[in-house]
Amino acid sequence: MPVHLHSPAPESLLSIAGVRIGTTQAGIRKAGRRDLTVFLLDPGASVAGVFTQNRFCAAPVQVCREHLAGDQRIRALLINTGNANAGTGAQGFADARASCAALASALQVDPQSVLPYSTGVIMEPLPVHRLVAGLPAAIANAHTEPAATQWFNAAQGIMTTDTVPKAFSATVTLGEKTARISGISKGAGMIRPNMATMLGFIATDANISQAALQVLAREVAEASFNRITVDGDTSTNDSLTLIASNQLGNPQIDAWEGESALALRAAMIGVARQLAQAIVRDGEGATKFITVQVDGGRDAAECRQAAYAIAHSPLVKTAFFASDPNLGRILAAVGYAGIADLDQTRIALYLDDVQVVSGGGRKPSYREEDGQRVMRQAEITVRVDLGRGTESDTVWTCDFSHEYVTINADYRS
Amino acid sequence: MPVHLHSPAPESLLSIAGVRIGTTQAGIRKAGRRDLTVFLLDPGASVAGVFTQNRFCAAPVQVCREHLAGDQRIRALLINTGNANAGTGAQGFADARASCAALASALQVDPQSVLPYSTGVIMEPLPVHRLVAGLPAAIANAHTEPAATQWFNAAQGIMTTDTVPKAFSATVTLGEKTARISGISKGAGMIRPNMATMLGFIATDANISQAALQVLAREVAEASFNRITVDGDTSTNDSLTLIASNQLGNPQIDAWEGESALALRAAMIGVARQLAQAIVRDGEGATKFITVQVDGGRDAAECRQAAYAIAHSPLVKTAFFASDPNLGRILAAVGYAGIADLDQTRIALYLDDVQVVSGGGRKPSYREEDGQRVMRQAEITVRVDLGRGTESDTVWTCDFSHEYVTINADYRS
Repeated sequence: MPVHLHSPAPESLLSIAGVRIGTTQAGIRKAGRRDLTVFLLDPGASVAGVFTQNRFCAAPVQVCREHLAGDQRIRALLINTGNANAGTGAQGFADARASCAALASALQVDPQSVLPYSTGVIMEPLPVHRLVAGLPAAIANAHTEPAATQWFNAAQGIMTTDTVPKAFSATVTLGEKTARISGISKGAGMIRPNMATMLGFIATDANISQAALQVLAREVAEASFNRITVDGDTSTNDSLTLIASNQLGNPQIDAWEGESALALRAAMIGVARQLAQAIVRDGEGATKFITVQVDGGRDAAECRQAAYAIAHSPLVKTAFFASDPNLGRILAAVGYAGIADLDQTRIALYLDDVQVVSGGGRKPSYREEDGQRVMRQAEITVRVDLGRGTESDTVWTCDFSHEYVTINADYRS
Repeated sequence: MPVHLHSPAPESLLSIAGVRIGTTQAGIRKAGRRDLTVFLLDPGASVAGVFTQNRFCAAPVQVCREHLAGDQRIRALLINTGNANAGTGAQGFADARASCAALASALQVDPQSVLPYSTGVIMEPLPVHRLVAGLPAAIANAHTEPAATQWFNAAQGIMTTDTVPKAFSATVTLGEKTARISGISKGAGMIRPNMATMLGFIATDANISQAALQVLAREVAEASFNRITVDGDTSTNDSLTLIASNQLGNPQIDAWEGESALALRAAMIGVARQLAQAIVRDGEGATKFITVQVDGGRDAAECRQAAYAIAHSPLVKTAFFASDPNLGRILAAVGYAGIADLDQTRIALYLDDVQVVSGGGRKPSYREEDGQRVMRQAEITVRVDLGRGTESDTVWTCDFSHEYVTINADYRS
C-alpha cells in the first residue's frame, strides 16, 4: 500500500516536443505486461546522465557511460524491465551492445547514439532475442500512440515491484516561453541510490546546452534521488537521465545563473524530488513516509551520515511500522553513525512538533501519548538536533514491515 | 527458533574458584523472571573490559569505564536486565552510581570497585528502588546457590529477547595445572557490536596480570563479538568483561607468549566465539546461521567491509530466509561495500562447495538446483573471492524473517 501516492491521471502528464515514447509487451520476463520502452529523440537534443556508484554496475550502465562520453548525439533510449543484465559478465556487454545495434538499425542511426537501460532480476542472461523482436512494435507505438498517454505508458512500462506508476509534470516560465517538464521513475526495493535512482527519466522541451545539462543532472540527483533510501541496498543499475529536446525556442541555457535558468533548475529539481519521494512512498512494504531531518551539524555530511543511520536502522524502521514511540532506537542510531566526537548531552529529538529528547535524555515534559499520536500518522518528520553547528541535511525513507519480508522472500518465485 | 543452539546443561558449566554468582527476581521490568545478577569476586582478581563505540553509550557503560580506570580492584559486578539505563541523561548516571553504592555498602567495599551493567529498553528511567531492594536476595543467593548452577542461572538472569540462555565452559592445561573458563552472553537484536557484544562475561581461575588481561579483552572481542551482526544496529550498552580470579596457582601470565599463555588465549577466544555465535544463532527471528567469508582482499579491513555489506543487506537476508539462491543480491552488496577500485570481473562467489560466480558473472556450469540445495540448509557459508590479494576476514550473521519484524514491532508493547 503506497503512502499517499496515487497513479497519475494520464492527462496530467505533458508531452514534450521532440520526445516520442513507445511501449510494448515483449515477454521479457512475464507475459501480459508492458516491459519494453523506447524514447525516440529528434536530432539536436541534449542528454545527460548520472549512474550508480555500485562497483558491480550492470552492463547497460557501462554502455550508457561510454555512449554519453562519445561524440554522437543521443537519438534513442531503450529500456527493458524484468531483467537487469547485471552480474552477467562479458555476455552481458555483448547483449547490451546488440540491443543498441538493433534499435539503431531500425532507426537508421549510429549504435553509439542509443542508451540502454535494464532493470529487474540480477544474474540472469538478458533475453536479447525477445527484446529485439519487440522493437518494431515499440517503435510503431511511439508513432501511433497519442502523445497524451505516452508518458503514462512509459511509467507503467518500466515498473518492477512498483505498485504504482510514477510520473509528474510541471511547467515553468522562461521569459516569453513556457517550458514543459515531464519525468518518470521506478524502483521500490534495492533503493539507496548513490548518484541516481534505479531508473529516472526527466525531459524538458527547453534549450539547454549539453554541458549545462550534465551539470544539472548531478545537482538534480543530489537534491532528490541521492536523498532517499528504502533498504540501504544500492542497486547495480541506478540511472538518472535528463533530456532537453531544445525545441522551445528559448535562448539556450549554458550556465545555471539568471532568472530563467534558476527557475528551470528549481522546477527540474521539484519534479525529480516528487519522483524520488514517490519511490519511497511506494517502497516495498511501506506503510509510512518518513522525513529524517538532521540539524545542528558542523557540516552537511555529518548530518547526512546521522540521517542515513536512522533511516537504515531495522529497529527504527520496525518501530515506525508498529507506531511505537520506542525512540531510544533513534538515539542509538545517531550514536553509531560514526560522528567521532559527538557529545550526547547536546542532542535533541523531535517527532513533528513534539520534543522528545533534550540534553541527550528524555525531556521531562514529554508524554508518551504525544509521541504515540505522531507515530500513528502516515507521514512523520523526525528531527534531530546535534547541537554542534548550523548545517542540516534531509533524507526520505519508509518503514519496515512484514510485507517487505514477504515481497523479498518471494520476488523471484 | 534458534539455529542449532540448545539451552546448556547446567552441569556442563564449570564453577570458577573466587567467583560467586547470585541472581534474583527484582521485578525491574516484568514479574516472575530473574532480572538481577551479581558477580562477587574474591580479593585479588584481575578484571578487564571493552565497551561499545556507540557515542550515545549508556550511563552504566561510562561508569564501568571510570571504575576500571580507577585504582580500586574490582570486587563485584551488578547486572540488571529489563532496562538499559541509556538515553537517561544526568539522572541515568546518578542511578548507576546509586546502584553501585548500594551493592558496595552491602558488601563493605568501595563503590568504585563495583561495575554496573544494564540491558533492556532504552530511554526509560532505571527503577533504582526495585533494583536496590533486590540486592540482599541476590547476594544471599550467591552464597547459598550450589556453585554448579550459578553460571546457568546467570545466563538466564541477563536475557532480554533471547530465547535460549547462552553459556559455555572449557578447560585448558597450563603446565601442571588445568585452568577453567566459563562465560555467558546475551543479545538477540540491536546486534552489531563495535568492540563487544551487548553483554558478555568470561571468567577463568588462571592467574593473569591486569595489564595482560586488558590486552586479551581487546583481542578476544576482535576475534568473536566484533565479528557478528544481526541487524547492523550497534547497541548503546555493549560490554565484554573478562575476569581472572587468579586462584589457580599457575605462574602469573604477564604477556601473551609461551605455550601456556597461548593455549589459554586460544581457549578464551574459543569460548568467546561460541558465545558470540550463540547470539547470532538466537538472533531475533533467525532461521539460518550464515558465515560470510571474504578472501582475496588486499587487506583484512576491505574483506570485513565487504562481509558486513553482505551481512547487513536486507535483500540478502530475506533471500536466505526464503532459501532463494537470488545471489545477484550478494554481488550487488559487494559492489556497494565501498571498495573504490574493485574490479568486478575478478570476483568469485561460492555457497559452501558450490561455485556460483566466476569472473564476475554466473559460472557456466552452475546449476540453480545446486544453489538451492545449499540455501535450504540451516547453516551456510558464503564465500566471496575478491581476486585482488591474499587477505581474508569472516563475519557471522543470520537471516531476516517475518519473526524479526514481529519481535521488533511488538518488543515494548
